[in-house]
Amino acid sequence: MTEASTPSTPANTQAQSDALRARADALETALARFREEDLALDLTRGKPSAAQLDLLNTLDGVLAGNFLCENGSDARNYGPLDGIPEMKRLCASYLGIDPSEVLADGNSSLQLMYQFVLWALRFGPDGQHPWADECRQAKFLCPVPGYDRHFALCEELGIEMIPVPMTNSGPDMDVVERHIEEDPDIRGLWCVPKYSNPTGVTYSDAVVSRIAALGKRAAPTFRVLWDNAYAVHDLTDAPPSLANVMDLAKAAGTADTIICFGSTSKISLAGAGIAFMGATAVNLDAYRDRLSLMTLGPDKVNQLRHVRYFKDMDGIRAHMRKHADILRPKFVCTLEHLDRALGNRAAGTWSVPEGGYFVSFNGLPGTARRIIALAAETGVALTPAGAAFPYGYDPDDAHIRLAPTFATLPELDKAMQIFVTCAELVAVRRQLGAND
Amino acid sequence: MTEASTPSTPANTQAQSDALRARADALETALARFREEDLALDLTRGKPSAAQLDLLNTLDGVLAGNFLCENGSDARNYGPLDGIPEMKRLCASYLGIDPSEVLADGNSSLQLMYQFVLWALRFGPDGQHPWADECRQAKFLCPVPGYDRHFALCEELGIEMIPVPMTNSGPDMDVVERHIEEDPDIRGLWCVPKYSNPTGVTYSDAVVSRIAALGKRAAPTFRVLWDNAYAVHDLTDAPPSLANVMDLAKAAGTADTIICFGSTSKISLAGAGIAFMGATAVNLDAYRDRLSLMTLGPDKVNQLRHVRYFKDMDGIRAHMRKHADILRPKFVCTLEHLDRALGNRAAGTWSVPEGGYFVSFNGLPGTARRIIALAAETGVALTPAGAAFPYGYDPDDAHIRLAPTFATLPELDKAMQIFVTCAELVAVRRQLGAND
Repeated sequence: MTEASTPSTPANTQAQSDALRARADALETALARFREEDLALDLTRGKPSAAQLDLLNTLDGVLAGNFLCENGSDARNYGPLDGIPEMKRLCASYLGIDPSEVLADGNSSLQLMYQFVLWALRFGPDGQHPWADECRQAKFLCPVPGYDRHFALCEELGIEMIPVPMTNSGPDMDVVERHIEEDPDIRGLWCVPKYSNPTGVTYSDAVVSRIAALGKRAAPTFRVLWDNAYAVHDLTDAPPSLANVMDLAKAAGTADTIICFGSTSKISLAGAGIAFMGATAVNLDAYRDRLSLMTLGPDKVNQLRHVRYFKDMDGIRAHMRKHADILRPKFVCTLEHLDRALGNRAAGTWSVPEGGYFVSFNGLPGTARRIIALAAETGVALTPAGAAFPYGYDPDDAHIRLAPTFATLPELDKAMQIFVTCAELVAVRRQLGAND
Repeated sequence: MTEASTPSTPANTQAQSDALRARADALETALARFREEDLALDLTRGKPSAAQLDLLNTLDGVLAGNFLCENGSDARNYGPLDGIPEMKRLCASYLGIDPSEVLADGNSSLQLMYQFVLWALRFGPDGQHPWADECRQAKFLCPVPGYDRHFALCEELGIEMIPVPMTNSGPDMDVVERHIEEDPDIRGLWCVPKYSNPTGVTYSDAVVSRIAALGKRAAPTFRVLWDNAYAVHDLTDAPPSLANVMDLAKAAGTADTIICFGSTSKISLAGAGIAFMGATAVNLDAYRDRLSLMTLGPDKVNQLRHVRYFKDMDGIRAHMRKHADILRPKFVCTLEHLDRALGNRAAGTWSVPEGGYFVSFNGLPGTARRIIALAAETGVALTPAGAAFPYGYDPDDAHIRLAPTFATLPELDKAMQIFVTCAELVAVRRQLGAND
């Protein structure tokens, strides 16, 4: 992940003002022409494209009438609450932990996180010490910009959110550590440690080490929610490596603070994949106790399908190389438009991710809402301004998340033409307003 | 559903005492022989058998590469929160309500119920009036014997349970209505209206009518949790009919009180089926609002599989006739053992269900625990005594739930030989103890 910055505005002159006005006119004319096309393009959500999903068309039917799990149990009947052994082993490889520390349940890692937070509040992450009893007001540290659904979940469940700045190597750990030491009500830290949503940042080894050791400073029931959603979602052949947070925490004696999550939603099928979590026994036992009162267990047939199809992490990695071949041109297209239109102008900066599902754009302060509104008028839907911040509030009104994966390449090309036109126009108008 | 009763004990004489002692010796000898076989038989849970699951071996693969829903959307990607239109229509037919009143989500109707109760407590069933704010202590009426997981869910979420007697036509409605009129904290009534778990009772039209109209007497946020788990699980060709509770409630102006649940767990695959709920817009909108913060939606691929396979309710009914052919001999076996061994003795009474998954046995008061313990020693696992009652407490210690579906016929035959031997022995010992 690197930032491509744009030079600052040159000193004003009348000739420059005239040039800006002419540029604004040209951009407005361009947008007017786009509006005539009556477009309905969508860069809002990190959804896989049909071409990615087509790669997996033989998943349905892969069982060929054989529903026996490796331990001889029948995947078609009610069974263990935490998934079949072969799926747990595959999830463990994905998360880099022991299979005994895995629970595979349902199709949504967000749901596992929701339930973890719900039950931690009410019964305690260890089943003994409810956050609701321990805290005046349970609080989570939220690196920003971050994943909007993490923040919405906290708001829903009554967790107060404290923003923490993201750096190019992960959350600002000085700030994280200071909050934890100063505020006894901090009970969580959200992390998307690889190709972070939306910045694309992969946490450095030093940051992962400090996160792993937070348990030494925090309340005993503090937990790191390690949402490793993009562990294998590389766009390059030499992807950045992520340190193993559980190994580091075990070495530090803080393993109980680490709760890992993952899913195959963006590996196999979005919505029809397998979600899983990984944690030490104290956490997993408490979670299972609560889960047992809600369900008789997961769809084990779909778990068996996944294992039979992918076999192991090598199978997943080979599959993800095909995803990368489909996604790489879309990221190239997105970044080329940004470079070409905004590379020499003062309209904003953006991330150049090596994986994941997003490009993070930072416009001039106070312009994100305007850019998004202008794009919407021109037929391009973008994630709402502020979505990547707790309570939907971006104090700088600068951040925009671009999700280039779902659109076809021609759609994306058009949408990015419009986006960069909007971004430049808003920036030019800002300069003109400041100059007038 | 009828009750097969046994005659009461004749007056005691020495000859009768000797005969009882001889009978006890014979039964103990029989049990000792069974113990030598070192059996591990299980009649605890209502699980389908492998033969039933085998009927559906082409469900996996039925999509044959076609993942398009009838509205042109792609089942493989993230999508609507409440399921695909064709699945909602099938669920609506099952529940006897309008497709617009259906939400299909996940594999577990228990989970839908859990979430409904959780969110009703916290946010209100209508999203406006949380039970937790309205009630000193939210309470549910619980027909007994009933479904253990309903009761465990209430206990988990802090709902107080008030037992209500089951009659042969459903809950004792005089008692239900009196509780509702006298206690303003009543917020729910559990119902398994067809082939009730575990009694096999199908609610009469009069009972359904009175349940549908409870909203006239109850608090505005009172809800009937109508768990129609066995709507199509008939064992006979002329099954009892169940009145349409939603139609009756609409006619009574109380439709908002009715929350229907169902699943294909015991139609297609246990754990790999589709769960659904049905309710009016005020309930469903509130539920969806909460659900949207927890998940991006259900496994729509599995929903599409189910619709392509079954097509409609006729398809489901044809399939369920094959289930009945497999299950009928198991119920016959169970009832024959009870009739043969206990039909003329004072050991208990039992249900003769026309559908569903259970036979309900009522031993002499104070004997259920002993029968279950004796069966366990002899290699037959039964549902724990009291399981069918709130807080696991059967005040009579008389009820035992028999689940004959999962075992093979030879296993079931052996398990029932042992069960009736245990039941008779405990009854004979009781008579001897009373006589000595």
